[in-house]
Amino acid sequence: MTLQPDRLFSAEPTQRELARSLYEVVKDLPLICPHGHVCPALIADPNATLGTPTDLFVIPDHYVTRMLYSQGVRLEDLGVPARDGALADSTVAEPDHRKIWRRFAEHFYLFRGTPTGLWLKDELAGVFGVDRPLTAENADAVYDELSEKLSRPEFSPRALFKRFNIEVLCTTDAATDTLDAHRSLRAEGWTNIRPTFRPDAVTDLQTEGWRDHITKLAEVSGLEVADYGAFIAALEQRRGFFKELGATATDHSAQTPHTERLSAGEADTLFGRALAGTATPDDAARFSAHMLLEFARMSTDDGLVMQLHAGSFRNHNRAVFKRFGLDKGADIPTRTEWTRSLHALLNDYGNDPAFRLIVFTLDESSYSRELAPLAGHYPALRLGPPWWFFDSVKGMERFLDAVVETAGIYNLAGFNDDTRAFASVPARHDVWRRVTCNWLAGETLKGIIGEDDASEMASELAYALAKAAYKL
Amino acid sequence: MTLQPDRLFSAEPTQRELARSLYEVVKDLPLICPHGHVCPALIADPNATLGTPTDLFVIPDHYVTRMLYSQGVRLEDLGVPARDGALADSTVAEPDHRKIWRRFAEHFYLFRGTPTGLWLKDELAGVFGVDRPLTAENADAVYDELSEKLSRPEFSPRALFKRFNIEVLCTTDAATDTLDAHRSLRAEGWTNIRPTFRPDAVTDLQTEGWRDHITKLAEVSGLEVADYGAFIAALEQRRGFFKELGATATDHSAQTPHTERLSAGEADTLFGRALAGTATPDDAARFSAHMLLEFARMSTDDGLVMQLHAGSFRNHNRAVFKRFGLDKGADIPTRTEWTRSLHALLNDYGNDPAFRLIVFTLDESSYSRELAPLAGHYPALRLGPPWWFFDSVKGMERFLDAVVETAGIYNLAGFNDDTRAFASVPARHDVWRRVTCNWLAGETLKGIIGEDDASEMASELAYALAKAAYKL
Amino acid sequence: MTLQPDRLFSAEPTQRELARSLYEVVKDLPLICPHGHVCPALIADPNATLGTPTDLFVIPDHYVTRMLYSQGVRLEDLGVPARDGALADSTVAEPDHRKIWRRFAEHFYLFRGTPTGLWLKDELAGVFGVDRPLTAENADAVYDELSEKLSRPEFSPRALFKRFNIEVLCTTDAATDTLDAHRSLRAEGWTNIRPTFRPDAVTDLQTEGWRDHITKLAEVSGLEVADYGAFIAALEQRRGFFKELGATATDHSAQTPHTERLSAGEADTLFGRALAGTATPDDAARFSAHMLLEFARMSTDDGLVMQLHAGSFRNHNRAVFKRFGLDKGADIPTRTEWTRSLHALLNDYGNDPAFRLIVFTLDESSYSRELAPLAGHYPALRLGPPWWFFDSVKGMERFLDAVVETAGIYNLAGFNDDTRAFASVPARHDVWRRVTCNWLAGETLKGIIGEDDASEMASELAYALAKAAYKL
Repeated sequence: MTLQPDRLFSAEPTQRELARSLYEVVKDLPLICPHGHVCPALIADPNATLGTPTDLFVIPDHYVTRMLYSQGVRLEDLGVPARDGALADSTVAEPDHRKIWRRFAEHFYLFRGTPTGLWLKDELAGVFGVDRPLTAENADAVYDELSEKLSRPEFSPRALFKRFNIEVLCTTDAATDTLDAHRSLRAEGWTNIRPTFRPDAVTDLQTEGWRDHITKLAEVSGLEVADYGAFIAALEQRRGFFKELGATATDHSAQTPHTERLSAGEADTLFGRALAGTATPDDAARFSAHMLLEFARMSTDDGLVMQLHAGSFRNHNRAVFKRFGLDKGADIPTRTEWTRSLHALLNDYGNDPAFRLIVFTLDESSYSRELAPLAGHYPALRLGPPWWFFDSVKGMERFLDAVVETAGIYNLAGFNDDTRAFASVPARHDVWRRVTCNWLAGETLKGIIGEDDASEMASELAYALAKAAYKL
Repeated sequence: MTLQPDRLFSAEPTQRELARSLYEVVKDLPLICPHGHVCPALIADPNATLGTPTDLFVIPDHYVTRMLYSQGVRLEDLGVPARDGALADSTVAEPDHRKIWRRFAEHFYLFRGTPTGLWLKDELAGVFGVDRPLTAENADAVYDELSEKLSRPEFSPRALFKRFNIEVLCTTDAATDTLDAHRSLRAEGWTNIRPTFRPDAVTDLQTEGWRDHITKLAEVSGLEVADYGAFIAALEQRRGFFKELGATATDHSAQTPHTERLSAGEADTLFGRALAGTATPDDAARFSAHMLLEFARMSTDDGLVMQLHAGSFRNHNRAVFKRFGLDKGADIPTRTEWTRSLHALLNDYGNDPAFRLIVFTLDESSYSRELAPLAGHYPALRLGPPWWFFDSVKGMERFLDAVVETAGIYNLAGFNDDTRAFASVPARHDVWRRVTCNWLAGETLKGIIGEDDASEMASELAYALAKAAYKL
Repeated sequence: MTLQPDRLFSAEPTQRELARSLYEVVKDLPLICPHGHVCPALIADPNATLGTPTDLFVIPDHYVTRMLYSQGVRLEDLGVPARDGALADSTVAEPDHRKIWRRFAEHFYLFRGTPTGLWLKDELAGVFGVDRPLTAENADAVYDELSEKLSRPEFSPRALFKRFNIEVLCTTDAATDTLDAHRSLRAEGWTNIRPTFRPDAVTDLQTEGWRDHITKLAEVSGLEVADYGAFIAALEQRRGFFKELGATATDHSAQTPHTERLSAGEADTLFGRALAGTATPDDAARFSAHMLLEFARMSTDDGLVMQLHAGSFRNHNRAVFKRFGLDKGADIPTRTEWTRSLHALLNDYGNDPAFRLIVFTLDESSYSRELAPLAGHYPALRLGPPWWFFDSVKGMERFLDAVVETAGIYNLAGFNDDTRAFASVPARHDVWRRVTCNWLAGETLKGIIGEDDASEMASELAYALAKAAYKL
């Protein structure tokens, strides 16, 4: 059996026992999924399936493909499709999913000690009942078993949504998205799938094809986006549209969290340069710093919770980007400063009860030094859970160790799975629930918190904090 | 009972037992308090009291008020007084201390898992015998019980000073302070309360009302402070005065620990600009970097131990500062560089046996990377204990983990409580003693240190290192 | 007895037992020493000895001397020789080795809790059979016992080499070295001692005596190094020479890992300025950033593995440097950025299967944030083990905690001892083996890895990863 029932709990028997009893309290609570990248069409289309085992577990999962790539496996050989036109000089992506699956199985040992390894084992066993380690030897048999199950109705996305006990699932959608899947879900009576407004493609002046995104924005908003004022109006219009379809939050990604107000004239000038195709990288950085302030203002007005994910150097590997495009495992974190960066934003909106900001960092050194002290002071600020590489056992333990002493748990935004891999949703929440229960057990045994407190805190961390933070 | 006798020790039975036996060795050692902010008048005035429970536990404690503020409680509603003149447009601070106490009790759960929560429980139980969790329900009863006790002579500051077994207590005093309370204590024969020379208000050219502080400096030193040379002479005069009244140390706060020598001419020019009210922020930064070198020189001359606390962005929240003033929980740490910053200072004085520098950081990432290697080389340098947000169980554990391997324990300055909350002094020392004993027990069981060594080290960390580092 | 058989294993009995059983698997594996500073003449000369106990344990070991220096012991009094000419104004280094040994023994307590303390105890007991704590009282007896043993043939370097079970030992050698000791070893049939090409002295334009190193380079390569092109040719010639004598790797030290391509013209101009003695510090920094790219290109061509050690501020203490020279414990780490710094190099060579780069940092905060994500993507990149101050129990634990979740263990380069202290080689490997086994035991008991996996991973970490990473 690959899944130990007491996994992620301390080896120390007293702590293990207490962790287990706390876990009993939270393990069956419904899942609150306030931030993630599941495609809404997967649920909206009643005939959607999860595809082949390789579609499900390998090709779109850049956590998986990057690790094999780091050990010399070509992305083409894992079925990763090249961008249009990028293949002139090369072989095509491997079309045989069984062959890819075998390659994956042969390299499964690479995931020893990684969260990807944990999630995969949990998905295989917990969702599909394949409770043995995947190896080169059993690759074909497992492939067959998974294929058969994936074809059954009880493994359809809608059936799994129910089985996973998801209370609410928020997707992430471009500002220009017409939210057809969301409209169709609402029409069918699904109110527990909600869009999230993510305008990065129109606010980052350096986005590939930015001009086209602006054209699209004009089209969907019905406003001519010819200057900065119209741009702001169009964004506000879209926020209203998202809100009507159930959105409670927006999401913003930035290289740095720097915030700085431009005068109306400067903002208009920069926007004009971008429209004319003459904006510089410095223009883009300044515009981005300004737009974070504008989005905070809009949140204060319309009540949408503002999320900020900062600190990733996207597409670090130019050759891989050129050939395969975005999200291929080559986004690398950078040092990220928050105290000075958020100064303008928090001074303008951080004391306003109508505003809520949830931040995510890839720089763990900022947790105890900057983010916990900020969250332990400003009423508007909450800390998002460990993000990306840090959505892991040790990432979570370090996070709790670093922030709770200074910010308490009531300035945290609970957990979110942040995944596009729908079938991994329960595995990810389960890791968080186990780790928090084990951590609370440790605190309890050290006499830092009482046992009753621990039980309440376990529920808050597993369920209530996320629900409250995102106004769900 | 809220206080577990083995609190802060490992859940692992062998380690817990060894930790307990080490703790037995140190728990009753006298308290050495070489750095803190207790008001000397509290002891000097034989009729001083600790006030109401709300005076004692809530209003002046920015660890407490910031946490409630972060969850939407207004500072006015916690009785925090606004600055003179800042209230024109607003309600006054809540005057009813019992009402504030109830608000505090209702929000007491916010401190779960925080050092403030630990200290409060320890103070309530250990100092006042209130050994049950504070809740909304028992708020009034606890308030009454505390009020009654606070009115008794055995809870006067002087009685507690004795009961706390304080061997020496150093206060922190402005360079311009006339040290009346200290003089009166000396006159009464108290030699174990000592002042510390803290000249920030006159050396930071950006201090609000800097010109007035200089006028005061001239007044108390009897020297006309009309140029840089006179400024230095006045500071030296004040140091002599503090030393006569028992001071063994100075304390310096700086945004960054950058040190850089100005020529005499430059220093005089900058000081002149400040007197004329035309100094720029850059002037102030350069003057500060220079003054750190000057204070090191003076320490080498007069033997006062130099303390440096660096890395806080003070008064981050302008609205709160404008309304309530300093020290309201809005001082936020920033990344802090030490290797290059102290280069000038350590090269000039770091090899001098007459010089002693104790440094404090809010950037934990600098401990293993910069501060422990520096302290493990320069004879003059000692590392102060975890400061502020990091004066916590996990902060201490991370500190020991980060510095001891490289600097050993003999380059540490032991513990100080750094508190203005007199009644919390024993609770804070107790956390340090428990954490260090538990940490030493872990090292011993891993065979890294011997059991006899552990016992000696426990005493050094609890008592002797601080006494030696501060020349007490 | 000073050496506990289960040392460095968890106090928790189940974990301790599993750690011990994993350790049984790896403890007698041969030692792979792919990076270090042992002098090859020590083995090449069949009559070499390890000298007096003081020669062996004190004088050349800057880990030892810096700690005593930090507590006020003068380096002269530890027998550290001053540079030629630096002694005009001072006493000479203490010549009496027994006297120095006593001083060392009196201060041995300073090493409590440090890796140096662990290694020393392990060397004394494990290599020399002195299994009692060193104290002021037994200093003379221990000195006599060690002296007697050191004079025996079974304690000669060659005998110890065999006893230590070293499979391969790589030294570190200047680009201009004629490798006489290596040639003589080869002639004798020793193929398991290999040189490593370290060209820092000729590529860092700020090296003291750089012009002389270039002259030497011209001499040994037989090429006139009059311009940049000839410089590159000479370096390539030397690499070929090192490779013939068994080298599989190069090593590069840099203040920062910044990489940036210069045009051929610029490189030639900078090199010309250096030859003319007019290069600026900025020229040197740019040339260094460029040369890292050039060395990556050469590695791609000739297959030598490229090592990069970055982030040390060398010779921080000018007085100590002036008097005693390099490597006296005053090299202090600095914050080090990797994501942007390696961008140029990894984009040019990081996807090339012929290239291998192993990096070492002194900035632990970069492990989880930058280095593990980079190593978990780029095929060329491997992470070296914890370096220098971090070659310690907690340094290793933090390293494993920080990198394995993101990079797995297969993007690590195993262990290297990086020591010039030949007799400490087994002690250092033993610490790594114990710590990794204990860490794997913890992961196993938490259900993160299987028990069979743990056993395989223990062997990989102890032996196979280093061998593979360095192509040995």
